[in-house]
Amino acid sequence: MNLQRSSQPVVPAPPRLARRMSRMAASAVREILKVAERPDILSFAGGLPAPELFPVRELAAAVDDVLRREGPAALQYSVTEGFHPLREWVAARLTRQGARVTAEQVLITCGAQQGIELVGKTLLDPGDRVAVESPSYLAALQCFGGYEATFLPIGSDDQGFQVDDLERAIAKGKVPKLIYVVAEFHNPKGTTLSAERRERLMALARAHRIAILEDNPYGELRFTGSAPPSLLSMDDTGLVIHLGTFSKTLAPGLRLGWLVAPPELHRAATVAKQASDLHSPTLNQRAAARLLESFDYDGHLGRIRQAYGERCLAMQGALARHLPEGTKWTRPEGGLFLWASLPRGLKADDLFADALREKVAFVPGSAFFPAEKRHEFLRLNFSNRSPERIEEGIARLGNVVRQHLT
Amino acid sequence: MNLQRSSQPVVPAPPRLARRMSRMAASAVREILKVAERPDILSFAGGLPAPELFPVRELAAAVDDVLRREGPAALQYSVTEGFHPLREWVAARLTRQGARVTAEQVLITCGAQQGIELVGKTLLDPGDRVAVESPSYLAALQCFGGYEATFLPIGSDDQGFQVDDLERAIAKGKVPKLIYVVAEFHNPKGTTLSAERRERLMALARAHRIAILEDNPYGELRFTGSAPPSLLSMDDTGLVIHLGTFSKTLAPGLRLGWLVAPPELHRAATVAKQASDLHSPTLNQRAAARLLESFDYDGHLGRIRQAYGERCLAMQGALARHLPEGTKWTRPEGGLFLWASLPRGLKADDLFADALREKVAFVPGSAFFPAEKRHEFLRLNFSNRSPERIEEGIARLGNVVRQHLT
Repeated sequence: MNLQRSSQPVVPAPPRLARRMSRMAASAVREILKVAERPDILSFAGGLPAPELFPVRELAAAVDDVLRREGPAALQYSVTEGFHPLREWVAARLTRQGARVTAEQVLITCGAQQGIELVGKTLLDPGDRVAVESPSYLAALQCFGGYEATFLPIGSDDQGFQVDDLERAIAKGKVPKLIYVVAEFHNPKGTTLSAERRERLMALARAHRIAILEDNPYGELRFTGSAPPSLLSMDDTGLVIHLGTFSKTLAPGLRLGWLVAPPELHRAATVAKQASDLHSPTLNQRAAARLLESFDYDGHLGRIRQAYGERCLAMQGALARHLPEGTKWTRPEGGLFLWASLPRGLKADDLFADALREKVAFVPGSAFFPAEKRHEFLRLNFSNRSPERIEEGIARLGNVVRQHLT
Repeated sequence: MNLQRSSQPVVPAPPRLARRMSRMAASAVREILKVAERPDILSFAGGLPAPELFPVRELAAAVDDVLRREGPAALQYSVTEGFHPLREWVAARLTRQGARVTAEQVLITCGAQQGIELVGKTLLDPGDRVAVESPSYLAALQCFGGYEATFLPIGSDDQGFQVDDLERAIAKGKVPKLIYVVAEFHNPKGTTLSAERRERLMALARAHRIAILEDNPYGELRFTGSAPPSLLSMDDTGLVIHLGTFSKTLAPGLRLGWLVAPPELHRAATVAKQASDLHSPTLNQRAAARLLESFDYDGHLGRIRQAYGERCLAMQGALARHLPEGTKWTRPEGGLFLWASLPRGLKADDLFADALREKVAFVPGSAFFPAEKRHEFLRLNFSNRSPERIEEGIARLGNVVRQHLT
């Protein structure tokens, strides 16, 4: 008998996890991002907005003002729906952009991510079908996966979500409960859903009474071209839930976003949020509302758009200079990402370790596919580095790709 | 044909909600609190901490300092687990209080409510049995209900959760997946679980490998007596998940709490939080950590404890003076609430409307029962009013009760 061994403490099994957790396993991307954010790596992997453009001083002044004038109220519990002046601001802005939205339809969330979560919680029973573009925003897939949804993967091209693909699926009886769309500057692809496809998508949703989740974290970041109407603005029968956020326009560290929904869905999402975290931070909501009273928000957005537009062009130029023939990429009109594909059967996953050795990083595109994974793609973030650093990083990436071609 | 009618727009049915939403219907309490917080009402209904004790100036200085010194980082995305110095602070404090906790076991949440939510998400499949004291914290019942749990209601007396009741249920084969306990200054009752019951509860959990959720939002608010060891400190086999919060000690409007769990559950809760809202607000976490570097937290807690202790005694004295014979109430050693029972078959629910007419409010206790509701109880909050206002409000309540007795 090996006494040494038997005297080791027995570690009992931990409590069994819920079934849904098997659908939310920590993603490979989480691990990739941890490595990629090492300070020695020139990373295009994350989805970080440019911190040098955060309105730090203006936010500091707003927080200070709120705490001086209304300190106790700004630190107390508040209603789940959110701070009313902030809800009014959101409704007014969306209305100016072509939708008709009242403050009562707005629920202030902890980022747009919580909006996705609340829609999953409110609408999805296990096995419910969710139509998702293939590829899609990974944390939305994880979230819907956690609600044990069945994915209906929809094809994707340079105009985004292929509505005719959805139409064919529906004709075969595969009617989804929910359609998830990032219509503007898609993550990971950077593409924009064309106006014509938006019309057809709305018509399909109307005909089959399918709810649409229009996730719009990047819509304010258009640096070229003009915006098609939002699905929210086209909705006349209460099917569209719309998500927005201050994470890419003011600062993600505030965790402030919003969900806009027809009355019954709004009520359900509010109840779900109450059980989730009671309400979004009072201080942050009041500070944002105070800031927006006097801040030149559109001027500020103009600076972000200009910087991101330059960075996006810098990245496209660098890709043309440094990547081998046959490499392709999307031409985003806004947002944070572009999506490149490698030539001659190269797999982005195979390049990743060598890229790290060259001190450059990206996210292999395979991570974003809900079902059959494809391996030739990379997601590249352009918002978080200067044009010079982008040039340098893409040159390194070019070296890695060339090594793999020979 | 009635043209007028047929020309009205047809409002189509909204998308069907998920099954779980029927278990999370907006509670009666939500409506009660809305009415009760009218400025003309002297309300004991809410669960608000005393805003005049919020460290407003100190928080303002901490936020300002963080934004001046580390603005962009304080406003950027950050890791799901939370800001490491704040996790270290939580671990150190819990360790000083008798548990052995490392920063790696701490997950920073949006209030303790999100801790409850994450435990539900991580552990509960539909039909899983959750043992809950009867009565229990309402938003926990709603949250577990949302995960379609089956409640195992456990009796409750002046020492809290009746462990022998749970023992009998287990002997009959009703083994819960999770035990939910507010061991310190229970909401709604104000009771504290005795040290002896804690021992027996841990022994039961160990014997049957049942996870325990120790929800401890009020533990720092003890104004008399001495604290039994926490369940967390007694756990040697990885069964206890412990929740705490700054909502009652610093300010609820920051939405900062923590979840402490054994490694596998911590990992699962982190993945679940990532899908829920990515992470808690960076700015709030850094400001709290900065504040706690220099703030006399224990001195601050001393002032809260003294005020709440005075208010609690004031309420008990007022109840003795103004309520008719046969009225009983708990004697909390801390926290925010006491629990009164009416004599001679009176139902608190029946008194509510008349109480509003007398400009006083409470929460009828029936709301807090997971199954068979009892109607003789009221939950009374003492933290949010001065002793003078408490005297006045309880005198009004006494009038209402006397009217119903005659």
